[in-house]
Amino acid sequence: MHVPVARVAPLLFALVLARADEGKWTPRQILQFEPATLRQMGLRLPLSRLWDPARGTGLLAATLSTGGCSGGFVTATGLFLTNHHCLFGIIQEHSRPGRDLITDGFLARTPDEELRGKSARITVPHRFTDVTGDIAAAASAARNDLGRERAIQVREKQLIAACEQTPGMRCQVAAFDGGLEYVLIESIELTDIRLVYAPPRAIGEFGGEPDNFRWPRHTGDFAMGRAYKDGKPYRPEFFFPISRAGVAPGDFVMVLGYPGRTMRSMTAGEMANERDFRFTLRESLYGEWIRLLEETTTSSPEGAIRVAAVLKTLNNSHTNAMGQLAGLARGRIIEKQQASDAAVVAWARGKNQWNDALRAKSELDRLAGERRSVATRDFLFQAMRPGPIALRHATTLVRLAAERAKSDADRDSEYQARQWPGLRNTLEREQTSFYRPADQALFAAWLARARALAPSERISAVDAYTGDAAALYTGTRVTDLAERMKMFDETPEQLHARHDPLLEFAFALDRDLRAWQAETSAYDGAVASLRPLWRRVVIAHAGKPVAPDANSTLRVSLAHVKGYVPRDGVQYLPFTTLAGMIEKNTGADPFAVPPMILEAARRVDARAVTLDFLSDADTTGGNSGSPVVNGRGELVGLNFDRVWENVANDFGYNPEIARNISVDIRFFLWLLRDVQHADTLLKELGQ
Amino acid sequence: MHVPVARVAPLLFALVLARADEGKWTPRQILQFEPATLRQMGLRLPLSRLWDPARGTGLLAATLSTGGCSGGFVTATGLFLTNHHCLFGIIQEHSRPGRDLITDGFLARTPDEELRGKSARITVPHRFTDVTGDIAAAASAARNDLGRERAIQVREKQLIAACEQTPGMRCQVAAFDGGLEYVLIESIELTDIRLVYAPPRAIGEFGGEPDNFRWPRHTGDFAMGRAYKDGKPYRPEFFFPISRAGVAPGDFVMVLGYPGRTMRSMTAGEMANERDFRFTLRESLYGEWIRLLEETTTSSPEGAIRVAAVLKTLNNSHTNAMGQLAGLARGRIIEKQQASDAAVVAWARGKNQWNDALRAKSELDRLAGERRSVATRDFLFQAMRPGPIALRHATTLVRLAAERAKSDADRDSEYQARQWPGLRNTLEREQTSFYRPADQALFAAWLARARALAPSERISAVDAYTGDAAALYTGTRVTDLAERMKMFDETPEQLHARHDPLLEFAFALDRDLRAWQAETSAYDGAVASLRPLWRRVVIAHAGKPVAPDANSTLRVSLAHVKGYVPRDGVQYLPFTTLAGMIEKNTGADPFAVPPMILEAARRVDARAVTLDFLSDADTTGGNSGSPVVNGRGELVGLNFDRVWENVANDFGYNPEIARNISVDIRFFLWLLRDVQHADTLLKELGQ
Repeated sequence: MHVPVARVAPLLFALVLARADEGKWTPRQILQFEPATLRQMGLRLPLSRLWDPARGTGLLAATLSTGGCSGGFVTATGLFLTNHHCLFGIIQEHSRPGRDLITDGFLARTPDEELRGKSARITVPHRFTDVTGDIAAAASAARNDLGRERAIQVREKQLIAACEQTPGMRCQVAAFDGGLEYVLIESIELTDIRLVYAPPRAIGEFGGEPDNFRWPRHTGDFAMGRAYKDGKPYRPEFFFPISRAGVAPGDFVMVLGYPGRTMRSMTAGEMANERDFRFTLRESLYGEWIRLLEETTTSSPEGAIRVAAVLKTLNNSHTNAMGQLAGLARGRIIEKQQASDAAVVAWARGKNQWNDALRAKSELDRLAGERRSVATRDFLFQAMRPGPIALRHATTLVRLAAERAKSDADRDSEYQARQWPGLRNTLEREQTSFYRPADQALFAAWLARARALAPSERISAVDAYTGDAAALYTGTRVTDLAERMKMFDETPEQLHARHDPLLEFAFALDRDLRAWQAETSAYDGAVASLRPLWRRVVIAHAGKPVAPDANSTLRVSLAHVKGYVPRDGVQYLPFTTLAGMIEKNTGADPFAVPPMILEAARRVDARAVTLDFLSDADTTGGNSGSPVVNGRGELVGLNFDRVWENVANDFGYNPEIARNISVDIRFFLWLLRDVQHADTLLKELGQ
Repeated sequence: MHVPVARVAPLLFALVLARADEGKWTPRQILQFEPATLRQMGLRLPLSRLWDPARGTGLLAATLSTGGCSGGFVTATGLFLTNHHCLFGIIQEHSRPGRDLITDGFLARTPDEELRGKSARITVPHRFTDVTGDIAAAASAARNDLGRERAIQVREKQLIAACEQTPGMRCQVAAFDGGLEYVLIESIELTDIRLVYAPPRAIGEFGGEPDNFRWPRHTGDFAMGRAYKDGKPYRPEFFFPISRAGVAPGDFVMVLGYPGRTMRSMTAGEMANERDFRFTLRESLYGEWIRLLEETTTSSPEGAIRVAAVLKTLNNSHTNAMGQLAGLARGRIIEKQQASDAAVVAWARGKNQWNDALRAKSELDRLAGERRSVATRDFLFQAMRPGPIALRHATTLVRLAAERAKSDADRDSEYQARQWPGLRNTLEREQTSFYRPADQALFAAWLARARALAPSERISAVDAYTGDAAALYTGTRVTDLAERMKMFDETPEQLHARHDPLLEFAFALDRDLRAWQAETSAYDGAVASLRPLWRRVVIAHAGKPVAPDANSTLRVSLAHVKGYVPRDGVQYLPFTTLAGMIEKNTGADPFAVPPMILEAARRVDARAVTLDFLSDADTTGGNSGSPVVNGRGELVGLNFDRVWENVANDFGYNPEIARNISVDIRFFLWLLRDVQHADTLLKELGQ
């Protein structure tokens, strides 16, 4: 990524040790660290090995994305490691009565036995190009915020289309800190992904929801896959050889991956909106939905299986929301942001070159205040994504039918032709998660909340519909897989001709959604013109480089293995061991250690088999499966969680409690060696 | 205490460092430690300062007993410190509407303001004399177990009577390890005890039941009293000056006090009885009683206040029972005891001198097995002590009336004339704890369990009574304070003449209780003749001294300040601080930090004010208020609890988790100085 030197001069300061623990650095930012500083931290490789700015790649590119998760190549033969939950789709796909890979785990003893995932794909970063000037030029002609946002989108689509001319490439334009920079990222897409090894779910998800976001942790959250290209193992240019020695307290590690979204570049006012309308409402609605999913499936084992994945997602999101709220309150993060915003304003006031920045700040705050009057409605629209499946399918079908009629360039980017295979796949696959009593209950809860909205944020479709959720679910055929897949190819007229009540509700709702999206685009457009102005003064005031907010692009966090003090009188140690897993064993899910593990554990000193470890890396959602490598670039673990005290680090970093949780690669090796006796595989892994 | 050299030769081995952490040593045993070993541990005083065997006293005698709790003199002017809950009676006694010492705490700014406790008394050890030979001689003439036990009791009463000829002396004969040794203990009794300082209950009981037996702890569980004799401050020969420096991790400390009862000298079979019939039944019945107390007082604030003390006792006992059961299971303590019993048996087998010992072991196990068939009934009788007050009062009155008719020497020792003032006091005082709906519910639950007993252990009084609990409670006047105090002086005939249904039930029950006590005495007599035989071989096999089981006599535990690992991945630090108390503050009981403390805390670095600390002392119930002194004999804290993992140490000591909890004397000084500004008192304390 080429940093625009003239515009963001402070980024040229060499990054100093003191701040290196905070920040999800872009590959290009890593090159700005003083080599001596990095050596002192523990890096044993030359910086040029990590990243070659001329080629736009390097060792860091051994980090892959599964679309939501991160992972890392570990051999030249296409083997990669990520979290168990990141390859869960393939494991589930190949499980059937009599061959329960979820429960038993899986090991391919030869490449022939590897299991291909139907829709699995990974992307490997190939080249990063700064396109900030290009986007800025396109936006400059716009007359208003909505026009500005649309102009940016049009230019992005053009750049992506040109980039994807190269076969096998998947491209995106990523905005950093709301438009301070734009980068075109070219990635190699690999669609032949096969499962090589997965532990039993009882290991991969050990501790389940009770241990989620918690330390001490004893989860073996990893799985191994192999990427193929043209029917042959893919040969990545870079990979992280597996370290046999592992890590010790105090060791330097780098956590590489694709962190999704953080909110640190927001003003205090914007953060308060996140707190009040994202996390508070998630805690409330998702909490209600979780209860409904549990209640409606109490007496139906089949229903319980069908809703399991959605329940897990909601539980995770709900727990996360509680952690964000608790962390914001305990760390007084928004109050501190307010103070730090005020310090920047005080510093910039009276300096002419920052007049625009101060006006931008006021305007951001004004917009954030304005947003509050419609924020509950916005949340209900956003909650459609993890919410009732039938409603989501109906709105997808309706929107797709309308967009298909347009030229591809004019289409909503999520409905362009390149997205159709994915959309079709989703609409087919989600049938396994659909359980009508549960789904209808979620929809009824959503509808009740929509009907209770304030006058300022009414949804027309909801006002127009006077029936109940049951009436829509009884009359619809959207929930019938075969019918739904037919609908996928139909025009709006054909869909209307079905007189399907849920489709009709979706048609009405689509008008609300389009209006909302236009409103949101206008807001985003305004923010995209304002935030860069404000961020520049924030960075100038800091007098040192600042890592941009996470945006699902490749980042590096520099860290050390260390424990922490969660509360007075308690020290959390940086490592857990197999002995601790056995201590927690109750024989019942989610604390049931499989008999084969118990047996193998009896043959060793279980206190000497390290399992999970803590480091002070700066991570967030999307860092699941992130390779954790030592100073020599060797894989020592896989990140899979943050600790409870650190969930609100999305808003601000606190070195005292910023800890991510990784599974120790030595536990993976122990399983392969002592439990699976997978000698051939271990040899391929260089062990 | 004079150890009988000829009989227990191994006790002459010098005690070695390796085992010094385990053991509640008698004062006399301390003298057997190598002085060099003790110096190495951290003792900075000559052994002769601790205890003078010729005089039967020394610095250790600065440790006093409040009858249930321990405490320590801290000045030559009679000031002593113990736990808050140990002086709670005086605090409660002097509280009234408008002067709520419980909530607000109390400080006497001059001696005039000190508050005398109506029934408070303390004893200070004066002399220990071995009477093993004396008792053995008395027992030798008995023809059976019951006769043996009665002969021992008669001789004990004679020794006590002779000893108490000296005015102001309180005497007891203590049996060590079930009769291996008997010691006559002479103590000075002080009955003019006045409250000098108590913190608010919110400090003294901070954390309440949720934090009970738990670390990290933030309880300021201390109170200060002054003993008077003949109207003047008592001048103890020994006291522990308060250390201003406090302790640091790794420091040597001694915990002195009157530990109540441990079970380490039991065989595995006897331990199993404790598990199955003491703790398992406590968990069940006390759990039920706790629920009943809560249910019957939900809508009665007055009732809730009345049952508060009983509820606290039951909660503590219930939690303790759960801890014992969990610890026995987790530590596999009984299984280990079984293995260690077997090792002793294997070692002694074939050695003629141990034939009696092996026969004693078999007999102890046979008796323990026999005991199981009546153990549930035994438990119900024992549970009358913390259980329904009216039933206890009725049985006390009935027994007292019968015993009063005998000569004092023939009386049941608990009903001898010397006990009458205490009995009268109890019967009067407990009126404040009586709340009829609650008490009746407890009795109904007890009755239901008694009715469900197996044929082998029926209670005749219960079989004969066909009514319900309500009938007894409606008809009785035992629950009327004035009537009850009249009954206190009545003969059996007078009591019968009242035709009081509860008294009549108590008369019937008294016959069962007497039969049970005779049975228990016979059992105790048998055990008293068997256990010493078995313990001798156990000690010989150990090849080193073994501290006797706790029996409410003065003991010393040698320890160091240190944290521990409660579970994999977690280290408990040895200190907590005022900052942690404030972290826990919710504003609501039991985590409500009083405003005056919050305010004072803002003026200091709360992380630097140490509050509680851990050490690996060997303690149990009765050690509440135990002075914790450093190697120079200075007071550094007051013991008040054990950690959860260590509750089952009553059965066996595990150095990895054996931790007692003390309140740091520096927190007490901080409160006096920074919150109370009690300069005069601090000066008297040498600060």
